[in-house]
Amino acid sequence: MMICTALVFFMHLGFSLLEIGLTRQKNTLNILFKNIFIITIGLLLYCLVGFNLMYPGNFNGFFGFAGFGLDAIAAADLAYNEGYTYWTDFLFQGMFAATAATIVSGAVAERIKLIPFMIFVIIYVGVIYPIAGSWKWGGGFLDQLGFYDFAGSTLVHSVGGWAALVAVWLLGSRIGKFKDGKPQAIPGHNVPLATAGVLILWLGWFGFNGGSVLSAEPGATSLVLVTTCLAAAAGGVAAFLVSTALYKNFDLTMFLNGILGGLVGITAGADQMGPTDAIIIGAIAGIIIVFAVSLIDRLKLDDPVGAIAVHLVCGIWGTLAVGIFGAMAGWSQFLSQLIGVGAYAVFCIATSFIIFYVLKKTVGIRVPEREELEGLDAHEHGMSAYPDFRMNEH
Amino acid sequence: MMICTALVFFMHLGFSLLEIGLTRQKNTLNILFKNIFIITIGLLLYCLVGFNLMYPGNFNGFFGFAGFGLDAIAAADLAYNEGYTYWTDFLFQGMFAATAATIVSGAVAERIKLIPFMIFVIIYVGVIYPIAGSWKWGGGFLDQLGFYDFAGSTLVHSVGGWAALVAVWLLGSRIGKFKDGKPQAIPGHNVPLATAGVLILWLGWFGFNGGSVLSAEPGATSLVLVTTCLAAAAGGVAAFLVSTALYKNFDLTMFLNGILGGLVGITAGADQMGPTDAIIIGAIAGIIIVFAVSLIDRLKLDDPVGAIAVHLVCGIWGTLAVGIFGAMAGWSQFLSQLIGVGAYAVFCIATSFIIFYVLKKTVGIRVPEREELEGLDAHEHGMSAYPDFRMNEH
Amino acid sequence: MMICTALVFFMHLGFSLLEIGLTRQKNTLNILFKNIFIITIGLLLYCLVGFNLMYPGNFNGFFGFAGFGLDAIAAADLAYNEGYTYWTDFLFQGMFAATAATIVSGAVAERIKLIPFMIFVIIYVGVIYPIAGSWKWGGGFLDQLGFYDFAGSTLVHSVGGWAALVAVWLLGSRIGKFKDGKPQAIPGHNVPLATAGVLILWLGWFGFNGGSVLSAEPGATSLVLVTTCLAAAAGGVAAFLVSTALYKNFDLTMFLNGILGGLVGITAGADQMGPTDAIIIGAIAGIIIVFAVSLIDRLKLDDPVGAIAVHLVCGIWGTLAVGIFGAMAGWSQFLSQLIGVGAYAVFCIATSFIIFYVLKKTVGIRVPEREELEGLDAHEHGMSAYPDFRMNEH
Repeated sequence: MMICTALVFFMHLGFSLLEIGLTRQKNTLNILFKNIFIITIGLLLYCLVGFNLMYPGNFNGFFGFAGFGLDAIAAADLAYNEGYTYWTDFLFQGMFAATAATIVSGAVAERIKLIPFMIFVIIYVGVIYPIAGSWKWGGGFLDQLGFYDFAGSTLVHSVGGWAALVAVWLLGSRIGKFKDGKPQAIPGHNVPLATAGVLILWLGWFGFNGGSVLSAEPGATSLVLVTTCLAAAAGGVAAFLVSTALYKNFDLTMFLNGILGGLVGITAGADQMGPTDAIIIGAIAGIIIVFAVSLIDRLKLDDPVGAIAVHLVCGIWGTLAVGIFGAMAGWSQFLSQLIGVGAYAVFCIATSFIIFYVLKKTVGIRVPEREELEGLDAHEHGMSAYPDFRMNEH
Repeated sequence: MMICTALVFFMHLGFSLLEIGLTRQKNTLNILFKNIFIITIGLLLYCLVGFNLMYPGNFNGFFGFAGFGLDAIAAADLAYNEGYTYWTDFLFQGMFAATAATIVSGAVAERIKLIPFMIFVIIYVGVIYPIAGSWKWGGGFLDQLGFYDFAGSTLVHSVGGWAALVAVWLLGSRIGKFKDGKPQAIPGHNVPLATAGVLILWLGWFGFNGGSVLSAEPGATSLVLVTTCLAAAAGGVAAFLVSTALYKNFDLTMFLNGILGGLVGITAGADQMGPTDAIIIGAIAGIIIVFAVSLIDRLKLDDPVGAIAVHLVCGIWGTLAVGIFGAMAGWSQFLSQLIGVGAYAVFCIATSFIIFYVLKKTVGIRVPEREELEGLDAHEHGMSAYPDFRMNEH
Repeated sequence: MMICTALVFFMHLGFSLLEIGLTRQKNTLNILFKNIFIITIGLLLYCLVGFNLMYPGNFNGFFGFAGFGLDAIAAADLAYNEGYTYWTDFLFQGMFAATAATIVSGAVAERIKLIPFMIFVIIYVGVIYPIAGSWKWGGGFLDQLGFYDFAGSTLVHSVGGWAALVAVWLLGSRIGKFKDGKPQAIPGHNVPLATAGVLILWLGWFGFNGGSVLSAEPGATSLVLVTTCLAAAAGGVAAFLVSTALYKNFDLTMFLNGILGGLVGITAGADQMGPTDAIIIGAIAGIIIVFAVSLIDRLKLDDPVGAIAVHLVCGIWGTLAVGIFGAMAGWSQFLSQLIGVGAYAVFCIATSFIIFYVLKKTVGIRVPEREELEGLDAHEHGMSAYPDFRMNEH
């Protein structure tokens, strides 16, 4: 569990590298700043309120709170669950909480104002995510209803994904993204870092899914790692094949997004699937990615890193897949999954809309045009990400 | 074991960064694409056929096959070996399988056609590597003979290295590598990423060798980590000293290749050596690297990343060293090691020659001259690895 | 413990990326070379003499030595401590030893001669660090005195930090750092790599502090991880708030240094603090960083990466904090901490002064002006870190 916590922490480096790699150089510092802010403030907020909102003891099923801060728990009581301690549990869940906000960060990159985004992070990570999480992982009403989400296809990825969707819609697209109604490619500045980011995320998923077994029971944990890796591989290969067939070029970023789609897709049922199920779920996620990216473009939504396709669309797919494949498959389970997806959709869309709408009408959420054109790094941070980078003469 | 699997997975990031760091910018995407393809397809193939070719149950010693796909194994049977489960074993070995192909990827970089390379990967990872592996790790004839290869100096590194040698020979050198018969330096584009790659590989070797103990027995595992790290350190320092003495400059890439040489060299006997043995084996590997790189140049073989020197030459050295140093040292063991090296040489040279020769005579294996000069990224992927990278004005 | 060793090893990648990210491109190879040298030679020296200097068996409390090399220890004796073996202990401590020298490497970057620096590393890692370490962790006189340093705020970070201070003072500032007595910003060349470095260091601290529990006891270890992460988060946020209030811009490098300051600050008492203590200690460390960086500038000391502020100043703060917060707080403990800080100050300043002063008066420690202006990479290594990096036409 502790090692898994370390790996989930490391995913934040993966997200950071992926996001800056797929965006333009002039906004690199800004994106890194947002990500570093999310990790640090997210952990502090989760300590202050989040953990006790999410796992609230006496609980009506919708909302509960066990007080501020962490308990000064006696060493004797530490082993409050089999296999992991109170402290490990806090840290592992705290790392998850920050992940939900990081997903939004990528989607709103290159045009959102820093301070309003920070306010959103504080509310969403500090309050919204833990309440949403309590419905299932805190033993709330969706848990009672039989809804299943092993490691967070919905509770983490969709929760982040819905907010990303709302934010992208309220923000509008980057200048130059749509010309005469047609989406234009705005290439990022560092594909090697994006690739490194995806491989680090895959590594982190060993912890994300492996740790969600919440024990070191070798049989269950090792099966989860196998299904996780096979889904990732199948997602990547499927996205590569479909995108090559459609667009006639070998598109690395589609390959990478396919891997991420497979990972998100398997997350809800990683412990319920056999290897073949995992490959099918991953492959379908990979296919979904290619079409979802194109659909989001056609909807005139501008998501620079493909976060909505990866985390929201594949998160929904993975959650529903628990009712279709594996040990829990069946109509009644499928219905439970559908209800869960719907409940989170309503709650996350509503809350993130309120937050972003209020911010938009008060402080504003979008940087001025000149700042967007010249880059957020120069305007908000007074610096460049590569201030001393020089070319060699050839 | 599961953590070691994660670390071995992470080695693929190390290989990717090392390879792109030591090659030119115009081929970066292509190399990353190949590596991502190897990891994903490798895992799927190992699931479909590889695992059951390598560990085939009833076995004549040369070739056996236990059917397609992974068993839907009952939870009760999961602990089929002491200390790790069926699933862990599959995943750990699957990560190894992909490594063999990655070694080839570096050697053929900057001039091989993408699709023929993919076909090679499918055959080599899916069929050749598992058959070769079964001879020793599947309990085949070399295992009966007393051949010893702890974690794959021969079974992984030489198996990849021989194919790299054959491929480089059939492909020919990059345009501009030899002028009037003299080798020219073709510097890579990002030494920091190459350095990061080597440190990630070293980290991965904690899992590669540590996990090959196939148990969490602390005495044996910790000794293996000590011998692994001491050999790496000695290899690096030796390569640095020799190359500085010979060429009068502080060559970082030689230092890095020395570390890798030490790691490959200790891999065959990491559990059989004491600390002093490990330092000697590593140091000799480091010295070998310097001369092997120069020898390969003089043979007019063009290996952009030094893969043949590191993985093949040091792989052979490490395998033979099991008969010279440590607990198993002795003439009869040395002979067994020599037979093993020879058997793999014959099999790997023959099979990889057939694959690459057939590909060369049918679809061709080398990109057109114009594509090579302008870069594979632009031609095969229609993109650049750093599409938005801009210089600062000074 | 073995996993923690791997994570501490990985910190060397973090240090390397942080250092090159915050310095200029023309000195990148040189810094990487120094770091790779430190890891490899450090491990070999620790095997040859360091380990037996630091844990010397019969011991007068100040200096002891148990002979050269590692024991050829029988497997039966391996479990010489509960929870980890002799080999694990060596490797874990060996990774620490190299860290002390790496701290110096950053502070002296961009102007120190390579060979004198190597000589310093050999003496400091091989002899000085282990002797200093033996005073507490070897059961020496400071241990008898009640001085407490859980994982090395003083024993590792200050020991490196004092040498960094002395070296920076003897070396002088980089050309152009002070104009008319005023400090000038010399921006680094790759902030993304620096950010990655900090996140890798944070990850490594999971091992650095987590492993220092010297057992896998889940209660103690998980608490240490919680205090470590909360202090890091609080340090970052505090440094961000203070520096934003003072300088009116969102300074990512200050945020990052705050995280590192929090990590160094909690290291001495990570197992003695509750979550609230950890947040306070981290936050104070973050505030200290902002003022310490500015103070060092005003003292006309030129520390390109902020190593003195992070490792020395926060190391002292963290050591003293053990007497102020948490389970050990009290005047007599505070006094013990103060004595410990003082003893290491005297010893490290004296020894590092002697080493650097002798080197300065004999071979010289600073590169010629022309070499400094043109970059150490070109002069000492005959190469550039990005030799083939080309810009795209826009």
